[in-house]
Amino acid sequence: MLPPRLTRLIDLFARLPGVGEKTAQRFVLWLVSEHGEVARELGTALSELGTLVRPCERCGNVAEVGEDKHALCSVCRDNRRDPSVLCIVARVQDLLAVERSGAMRGRYFVLGRLLSPLDGIGPDELPLPRLMERIVADGVREVILATPPSVDGEATALLLARELAGRNLSLTRIASGVPHGGDIEFADQITLGRAIDGRRPV
Amino acid sequence: MLPPRLTRLIDLFARLPGVGEKTAQRFVLWLVSEHGEVARELGTALSELGTLVRPCERCGNVAEVGEDKHALCSVCRDNRRDPSVLCIVARVQDLLAVERSGAMRGRYFVLGRLLSPLDGIGPDELPLPRLMERIVADGVREVILATPPSVDGEATALLLARELAGRNLSLTRIASGVPHGGDIEFADQITLGRAIDGRRPV
Repeated sequence: MLPPRLTRLIDLFARLPGVGEKTAQRFVLWLVSEHGEVARELGTALSELGTLVRPCERCGNVAEVGEDKHALCSVCRDNRRDPSVLCIVARVQDLLAVERSGAMRGRYFVLGRLLSPLDGIGPDELPLPRLMERIVADGVREVILATPPSVDGEATALLLARELAGRNLSLTRIASGVPHGGDIEFADQITLGRAIDGRRPV
Repeated sequence: MLPPRLTRLIDLFARLPGVGEKTAQRFVLWLVSEHGEVARELGTALSELGTLVRPCERCGNVAEVGEDKHALCSVCRDNRRDPSVLCIVARVQDLLAVERSGAMRGRYFVLGRLLSPLDGIGPDELPLPRLMERIVADGVREVILATPPSVDGEATALLLARELAGRNLSLTRIASGVPHGGDIEFADQITLGRAIDGRRPV
């Protein structure tokens, strides 16, 4: 019933994470019927995206391509950061969350994926050679494993710990336990178990 | 923390209906980090949108601009439709829903908005002159008022009924009552009142 051009646009919007066909149709009709200028601006911004924004060459964070044609993110360009401390995260979203906490003074390495045998992602699919190079090049002395405390995240942390052993690095894993403001009563048993295992002297 | 270009893109996505800042950020990071080709295609499709898709000149439905530079929707181009029956709806979404029902063999008129005194939308903001022209030009003999059974929709239907009175038209309002598969027990009192008021002989 809709013109083929709109159907195609709806299909494209429906590929965005968490967007179904109904929501995509709502977006498209909103753009067509009364917000042509948003469609235009969005179109231009998205078309430029590929050439002007790329993963940071050093850490994988999002980065604008500079005048020197190199893509280095704001964290990697910041000279006040301690290059000897490296925080390994799964995704850019996780990097942004750690940055928001303000607790990390070092730099990052974005894996881009986690070990996931069910999806066919084994150790060879992780960017381990690039990580090793980075550790040597930057003279990293402390590595913080900040993959999520999920099955895949724990497996990945374990693999990384094994790969990085014997390199004279301080290797730590972020704490897992009851979150700030959380309820002991309603915490699940694994979280509570971890909170107790990870207890610290007061 | 994000490059300014991405922040701007996030702001644009966040203008879409029902999309907040978090969801917009999720879209943008998904597009940047691993789906560059979707970003490019979406960019091209959105940039073309304004010149190639416009509201239908006759009814306001979405329409692709034809080789004759005119925008006429598939319903208005379809000669098998009865031009003497006109269904008036508030939005393109409503037109699509009526079309899906398969119950409408005539054509449409999309108002684009409803009377809404709180938002400052009075009778002068409705496209009444265009509606009157259309009724004369197409020789319309039956008008079906399919604005939603909400306060604004009812007020608009009432206004239209008044404006169209004395023109020798068969004027009807879509039925309001308990929906198909709905529960009598859980129907709200206004709906149930309408269902009883609108009862028909069996």
